[in-house]
Amino acid sequence: MSAVAKTIDISVQPLGLKARGECGQTLRKILQELGVELSSTCNGLGRCGKCRVVVSRVQTAVGEPTAAEREHISAQELLAGFRLACQARAQGNVEVCVPKDSMIWRTRLQTEGVETSVEPLPLVKKLYVELSKPTLRSLEPDLERLMRKICEHNVRPSYLPPQILEDLPETLRIANWKVTATVWGCKEILDVEEGNTTKASYGFSFDVGTTKIAAYLLNLSTAETVAISSMVNPQVKYGDDVISRIAHAVRGETERKELQLEALEGINQLAAECCSKHGIDPRHIYEATVVGNTAMHHLLLHICPKHLALSPYVPAVKRALNLKAHQLNLRINPHANIHFLPVIAGFVGSDCVADILATSIFQEEDPCLLLDIGTNTEVVVGNKKRMLACSCASGPAFEGAHVRHGMKASSGAIESAEVDTETLEVRFRTIDNAEPRGLCGSGVVDIVAEMLKAKIVDSEGAIRHDANSSRIRVNDHGQLEFVIVQEGKTGPRDIVVTQRDIREIQLAKAAIRTGISILMQEIDIRLDQIAHMYIAGAFGTYIDPASARLIGMIPYVPLSIIMSVGNAAGMGARMALMSSKARSMCEKISHNVEYVELAAHSDFRSTFMESLRFPYR
Amino acid sequence: MSAVAKTIDISVQPLGLKARGECGQTLRKILQELGVELSSTCNGLGRCGKCRVVVSRVQTAVGEPTAAEREHISAQELLAGFRLACQARAQGNVEVCVPKDSMIWRTRLQTEGVETSVEPLPLVKKLYVELSKPTLRSLEPDLERLMRKICEHNVRPSYLPPQILEDLPETLRIANWKVTATVWGCKEILDVEEGNTTKASYGFSFDVGTTKIAAYLLNLSTAETVAISSMVNPQVKYGDDVISRIAHAVRGETERKELQLEALEGINQLAAECCSKHGIDPRHIYEATVVGNTAMHHLLLHICPKHLALSPYVPAVKRALNLKAHQLNLRINPHANIHFLPVIAGFVGSDCVADILATSIFQEEDPCLLLDIGTNTEVVVGNKKRMLACSCASGPAFEGAHVRHGMKASSGAIESAEVDTETLEVRFRTIDNAEPRGLCGSGVVDIVAEMLKAKIVDSEGAIRHDANSSRIRVNDHGQLEFVIVQEGKTGPRDIVVTQRDIREIQLAKAAIRTGISILMQEIDIRLDQIAHMYIAGAFGTYIDPASARLIGMIPYVPLSIIMSVGNAAGMGARMALMSSKARSMCEKISHNVEYVELAAHSDFRSTFMESLRFPYR
Repeated sequence: MSAVAKTIDISVQPLGLKARGECGQTLRKILQELGVELSSTCNGLGRCGKCRVVVSRVQTAVGEPTAAEREHISAQELLAGFRLACQARAQGNVEVCVPKDSMIWRTRLQTEGVETSVEPLPLVKKLYVELSKPTLRSLEPDLERLMRKICEHNVRPSYLPPQILEDLPETLRIANWKVTATVWGCKEILDVEEGNTTKASYGFSFDVGTTKIAAYLLNLSTAETVAISSMVNPQVKYGDDVISRIAHAVRGETERKELQLEALEGINQLAAECCSKHGIDPRHIYEATVVGNTAMHHLLLHICPKHLALSPYVPAVKRALNLKAHQLNLRINPHANIHFLPVIAGFVGSDCVADILATSIFQEEDPCLLLDIGTNTEVVVGNKKRMLACSCASGPAFEGAHVRHGMKASSGAIESAEVDTETLEVRFRTIDNAEPRGLCGSGVVDIVAEMLKAKIVDSEGAIRHDANSSRIRVNDHGQLEFVIVQEGKTGPRDIVVTQRDIREIQLAKAAIRTGISILMQEIDIRLDQIAHMYIAGAFGTYIDPASARLIGMIPYVPLSIIMSVGNAAGMGARMALMSSKARSMCEKISHNVEYVELAAHSDFRSTFMESLRFPYR
Repeated sequence: MSAVAKTIDISVQPLGLKARGECGQTLRKILQELGVELSSTCNGLGRCGKCRVVVSRVQTAVGEPTAAEREHISAQELLAGFRLACQARAQGNVEVCVPKDSMIWRTRLQTEGVETSVEPLPLVKKLYVELSKPTLRSLEPDLERLMRKICEHNVRPSYLPPQILEDLPETLRIANWKVTATVWGCKEILDVEEGNTTKASYGFSFDVGTTKIAAYLLNLSTAETVAISSMVNPQVKYGDDVISRIAHAVRGETERKELQLEALEGINQLAAECCSKHGIDPRHIYEATVVGNTAMHHLLLHICPKHLALSPYVPAVKRALNLKAHQLNLRINPHANIHFLPVIAGFVGSDCVADILATSIFQEEDPCLLLDIGTNTEVVVGNKKRMLACSCASGPAFEGAHVRHGMKASSGAIESAEVDTETLEVRFRTIDNAEPRGLCGSGVVDIVAEMLKAKIVDSEGAIRHDANSSRIRVNDHGQLEFVIVQEGKTGPRDIVVTQRDIREIQLAKAAIRTGISILMQEIDIRLDQIAHMYIAGAFGTYIDPASARLIGMIPYVPLSIIMSVGNAAGMGARMALMSSKARSMCEKISHNVEYVELAAHSDFRSTFMESLRFPYR
């Protein structure tokens, strides 16, 4: 008897891939090995139901559906060959069709932010110096000769990387003693280059989110943003949310390293893309700043993230960290300084610090409110005297998960909608004006607000049964649902909002609203005292503040004080790249912001319960 | 036709090795590949004549002798099969006998030095701390929690290696929040260990010489020297002197790396030996200091040494350097600080700085004279007001090279001798009282002094022909020579001092004496003002000061002010290991000592010519 697994043939449509695989493996695993990434928010646990594929000759190819499949796929769909790739295991030769909805698309990423003026005070200085040659009457050693000239520029570096020192004698002589020294923070020499290269001085800011990574390439002399690029965080294959990533990382050393390498490789790709597009030598990138939530921060630094997911959720470190590019295998100047901005708490990361920096809340006289909405929504309330922050487990509903036809903000997502209060007819707009594929966060908020206005949903969140409209109906699971898109009429398939979806939205918006309420209570600020309300993040850019206010996600403040600040975290990261003063501010922000652990707050449960209702009057 | 070289059989006696080799290779290369290292001071250029081997069936095995072989081997010896391994190339199966004299022996190494008291002020501090556990009411992150406790001990470290941070959450929890932090220089944490390990705190000092490497293992809490170990510098296979090593290193990147790795491997071996002998965990070695001549310094740091050998001989760097153990692949705590003491000039290294530290010249009121005798002899003259240093190309005569029967100070070397002025009979003492194999440095100095006293040599250095004594005779090359050991009578083979040997000694001692004279002239100090004269180095320990004075190597000072200080450099390195104050002193010494380039001095040639004569009156 041989223990070797049976080999099977696989073909993948509509991609036209053909390959061999191992019998008994899940289709997800087989597809992953072929480089086909599927949507997933549960990292293959059969919980999210996103990784739907269609299998031909389903009985012989993958056998009986699991309980998880029966829950997410209707009996009719099962008959048609629909299966969950994370559940179905290949049992013979298999032909898999991957629907568009199940593939990971390049989502619409928000990297514009709000351009704030940054005074260029970079830590990197390039100095061109011409040295005299050593002679028998001038025996000063090479480094001391160089340092003396550099000190004439009012900087006194005390460190030179050993690798630069190793070849300094040759560098100086080949350059005929005319070189450019790059000095960092007035205290370290990062590089010594032949001739005058003072004009070529660049830096990167990276905003590493759970979903996306954004890169900003800046000219350090002018503070000009030369290039912006972004991509889906390649870690997404290990799950959509931080908890799945942490769960994967704590499995073992290999897995923890995998997650680090995925993110670093993403950063390297973006950096290479920006540099090559603008003909910039990666050696001339001398610094980078990095922001992200605390889980991304830990994973990037290969810090054990286990305790971020265990009560009391403390991070391993809070302060800002500086590493060298070569320590992270970043393919820029190996001695470039990589500055990780400080974090606030286990679920309030350096992206939130950067948000606060970019919006200047920490310098404001009047109280401000800041939301950075995502799977975890960070809320900050305060002014220059005092600031409180918390993290709300708003869940991925606003990012397209846990909602029947939810999807990321990519092509074909319904991003805004209107419901006729009389006819209940729906008018909508999709991203790229493409055929409707589902609902992204801003679309979900809009729809729910419109359903409230049209009284399709009551203040408790119950869908009202209305025999007069075909748009309100009972689905296979006996649940009421509201039809947004009708198959064959307004789109290629039905897109609905179910009773269960409404419950998910209630949970999500209640989580955010609870955070806001508790922080305002703790800091003792009334709603009418709030001077500015900032909504940051991709979702925040597209959301309709009126709808958000209507469903009670945000409190009832005048629309005039609400400001969408886009990717404020990316802006903050760029400010920190350009200025040491901004970095000191970040240290102060990280130190001064008081973190409030909602779960430990005595009013948490009651406030949350109150927040579940829709406030529409 | 095949291009593959013919393979031949080799046997090596008396080692009993058998192997296959490539036809056309030198015997030296073949033996090297078998791990048999031969004496050599010219790195296989056929100049030193040290790598003598005896070949059986010499005609068919290795063919005709080269010009270099004819110069170093007498016609009679050639007939007997004597050849130079670096010259003779295998042409067929070959049986090689390696005489004891040609093998590299473990030489007598001088690592005792003079024990000076060192006040323990180490930069390494181990602090045991007990932390409170985080709770929902105490959310301080792990590192900040640790740092706060550490700061209670009046140190404010601001840096922790990323590798330690990566696992800090697990380390703290496994240790139940009771850990020992090792702090360096009050500013860096080097390690965080479970439990209380404050007692285990060690450091190394390494003295890396051209010929030997000495290691001193110190208990950092008590300043006690726990172990001393030493070995031949493994780089010796690339030549005996710094110039051969530099020549090899500048051949290419591989060669430069080779030399670095050889020396580092030597250091690693010594460290492992010392640790295992005393049951010390290498992780508990937190710091090391390194001294050596400037070539060794550059080679260890992989710094391009090319310009050390080219006028004006400036080093790449002068200041002290700190590296981490892992950057050099040293197998001690990877975050241990490796402190390279500063150098003075291209030919005056950190060993000389350590000599000055250990002898306290830089604090003396009265003028002192310091010699560190070797292939290059460093001379320092001065006191706390002013110090001058130079390097004299004394050559390897005092180390056994360039002298007919010269050898290193190893077993069987004649280390002291007396000549009866009447009978010219010689009495001698050998190291280990072994059969005489040759003359080591102190023996050479003694013999020449005795030959002067017995008027065998006149003040110009000419051997006087004396038909009355069989000990003075004419050799094969028509040169006069004085017989120290007679074959069959007082030893297994003749050991002689030739006229050419006397010339070598004259050149060597004149080089040293010229350095002393020029420095004293430059600093304007008379001989009778010298309060102390220190002779450092292995050779300095065994030399008879009266003989050295008699041949004019050192000036005519009272014997009472001459002090042999043994391995003062090793002592200085240990003082620097134990005290940051000592390190600052070294920086001052390196900065303040004025280097005098003898070759550029207007009086150099005339002073050297005067110094060639023997002063014996």
